[in-house]
Formats: sequence, C-alpha cells, structure tokens
Amino acid sequence: MVKQDRAIRTRKVILESAARVFEERGYKAATINEILTAAGVTKGALYFHFPSKEALADGIMHAQNQWRAVPERACRVQQLVDTIAVHAYRLQSDPMVRAGVRLTLDQQAGGLDRSGPFDHWRLVGTELLEKAGAQNELLPHVDFVETADVLVGSFAGIQAMSQALSDYQDLPSRVSSLVRHILPSVVVPSVLAAVDLSEGRGAAVHAELLEDPVDFL
Amino acid sequence: MVKQDRAIRTRKVILESAARVFEERGYKAATINEILTAAGVTKGALYFHFPSKEALADGIMHAQNQWRAVPERACRVQQLVDTIAVHAYRLQSDPMVRAGVRLTLDQQAGGLDRSGPFDHWRLVGTELLEKAGAQNELLPHVDFVETADVLVGSFAGIQAMSQALSDYQDLPSRVSSLVRHILPSVVVPSVLAAVDLSEGRGAAVHAELLEDPVDFL
Repeated sequence: MVKQDRAIRTRKVILESAARVFEERGYKAATINEILTAAGVTKGALYFHFPSKEALADGIMHAQNQWRAVPERACRVQQLVDTIAVHAYRLQSDPMVRAGVRLTLDQQAGGLDRSGPFDHWRLVGTELLEKAGAQNELLPHVDFVETADVLVGSFAGIQAMSQALSDYQDLPSRVSSLVRHILPSVVVPSVLAAVDLSEGRGAAVHAELLEDPVDFL
Repeated sequence: MVKQDRAIRTRKVILESAARVFEERGYKAATINEILTAAGVTKGALYFHFPSKEALADGIMHAQNQWRAVPERACRVQQLVDTIAVHAYRLQSDPMVRAGVRLTLDQQAGGLDRSGPFDHWRLVGTELLEKAGAQNELLPHVDFVETADVLVGSFAGIQAMSQALSDYQDLPSRVSSLVRHILPSVVVPSVLAAVDLSEGRGAAVHAELLEDPVDFL
C-alpha cells in the first residue's frame, strides 16, 4: 500500500515535470533527458511509468479527463453548460489541465496523436445532448454529434484566444459569450431561459465539487 | 524596378522558408541559422528584410491578412459568411496561411505577440456586423464586438480540431456547422433563410476571386 502510494506520487511528479518541460520547450523540441532532470527521478523510474515521450504527452492530455463529472442536474442543458464552465475554470487554475489542452492544440506536435481529448469531449457532449433531447429540452432538428463537435471545437479556440489576448483572465466571460451564441440554435427557448449562462458559473460549480474532493490523478 | 522585384522575391522565399522551419521545429525551437540554410540567402539579406525571429513570425502571421477581401454583397451577413468560408478554403490550400494560423495559435511561442491576427479578424468581423446591423439584418440585442469575438475564437478552434482529426479534410463541413449554430442567435430569421451556408461556399468564392487575381505578398 505504501509502495503503491509512492508509485502514484512518482508518476505525478514525472507528469508535472513533463508538463513544465513541454510548456517551456514545446513538445517537439523537448527531450526525455530534460524531463528526467526536471523530475529528479531515475531513467528506470520514468520508463516504468511512461515508455516514451508520446506516453508522457498522452498522460498529460488525459489529466483533463480525470476530474470528476459535474453533478447531475434535472435540466441536462444546465449540466452541459456546467461541464463547459467548470472545464474553463480548471483551465485557468490547474497547470496540468492547461498543459493538456495546449498539447492537444499543438499543431506542431507532428507524430503525436492528439485526437484523444477531442474524442473524449465529443463523447461527453454527445451523451449530455442525447439526455437533453430525451427530455425534450432541444429543438427537434438537432444532430447531437454535430452540435457536440461545434461546442468542443469552438471551446478549443475560445480558450486559445483568451490565452493569447489576456493570459486566460477573460476566459469566463468568453465562455459565457460562446454558450449564449450557440445554445439558442439548439435549445427550446423556455428551457434556455432558466439556464444559468453567467460567467461566474464555473467557479460556483467548482466550489460545489470541492465540498467532496477526490484526487484527480 | 528589376531590383525591387528581386527584393520582393527574396522576401517571399525567406518567409516561405521560415514558415517551413517553424512548422517543422515549432517557433520556440527554430533558429535563424536553420531558416538561413532553408532559404539559401545571406545573413545580410535576411536581416535586411527581417531583423529578428519575431519579425519573421509577424510576417508569416500577417500573410493571412493579405488576401483580397471578398466582393461586397447586398446581404452583409452573406459577405461575413463568405469571408469566413474563403479563409477556411485558403487554410486548406495555402501553406503560408496555414503556417500563419498555426503560429497565431502556438501556445508555446512565449515572447511572441500573437494578438495581431486576432485583432485583425475581430476588426473585419465587427465592421461587417456593423454594416449588417445598419441594414437591419441582425437581431436588435446584438453586440457587434462580442459576436465578432465569438466567431473569431470559435473558428480558431474549429480549424485546430479539423487539423488534428482529419488534416483539414473536414474543414468546410465543420465551418458550415459552426455558422449554422451561431448565426441563428444574431441574424433575423428571414435574412438568414436566404444566406448560403453550405460547405461548398468557400471554394465558390475563391474561384470568383481568382477571376481577377492579385499577388498576396
């Protein structure tokens, strides 16, 4: 048990160090040796957990999927908005989530399969939209997969723009703008009128989740 | 005149070589020496046109703004859609536009001011939305700047997702999805019903522009 705890801690230190090195050097330029130095672990320990640079990147990209899902809401559209808002909050506040999102969007990271996080978020979005549709919260023409794809893709760009223009300071406001622009084309108006789309939503849901915390790695 | 032509050609060769090196190595890892080798020009020639690595990146990011604007349309919303669609078409087909967009979204390019292209496209979008508003094509509550920001940010992410998942093959279809999801929240329904939002629009507008070509650098 103690041994297992130590392995989990070592894995976490390695991932955090790799995230820092990828952020500083870019995925392509970063080397395993730089990550070894930053983590202060042996080559054997690193390769035990991560057999390659790509495996390290996968581990970092995967971290954004490890947070607990937001609580179930009677209104599934609210649950969808909460999922987006709290992810934005984590992007602002958690270096590991930030590193994962940046790697996912690193268009220079040739050879690295960056489809995992897109696929994960498309699935999360599609499932929530299906539930919303089953409860008649959506307009009849909605294609769940297509709408999930638009939400995931546009969120990716909104966060990149926010980082470039304000180092994420304006992210909550930009995310609120985004959902207010997209949801009217898919949600029944009377349902949407009752959904909280405000920019404070992400912080509020995060605080709600913290009341019963779990380790995310 | 001949001398000037040669300078323009040299500048273009340097920019194309720098774009290739940035794509291959990432902005941060790329060096001026690698760009010199790729371009096959003297250090003096390079520094005459571009005093720094940042100036080279600025030149590449600026290239996406150098294409001619789409023709004026009686319907300004159509003109806005055409501007987005033809930019997507250029991203698919022009390596220099692609390199500029990737640099703009290179979240590892610390020290490089990447706000220029965002500011350019926000301005283009805001102006077209203002014209559409003046012609009563938009719903009364629309905030032109906010909607332009949502369009620019979400486009940036849609193209990144398209590159990661399909190497840009599905870009026209994703861009069509995006505008069909956002425009209903800002455009008067009877106006929107007459706008061509189809995925073939970018190629069609590009062909229209080619009938009277100009060099874009």
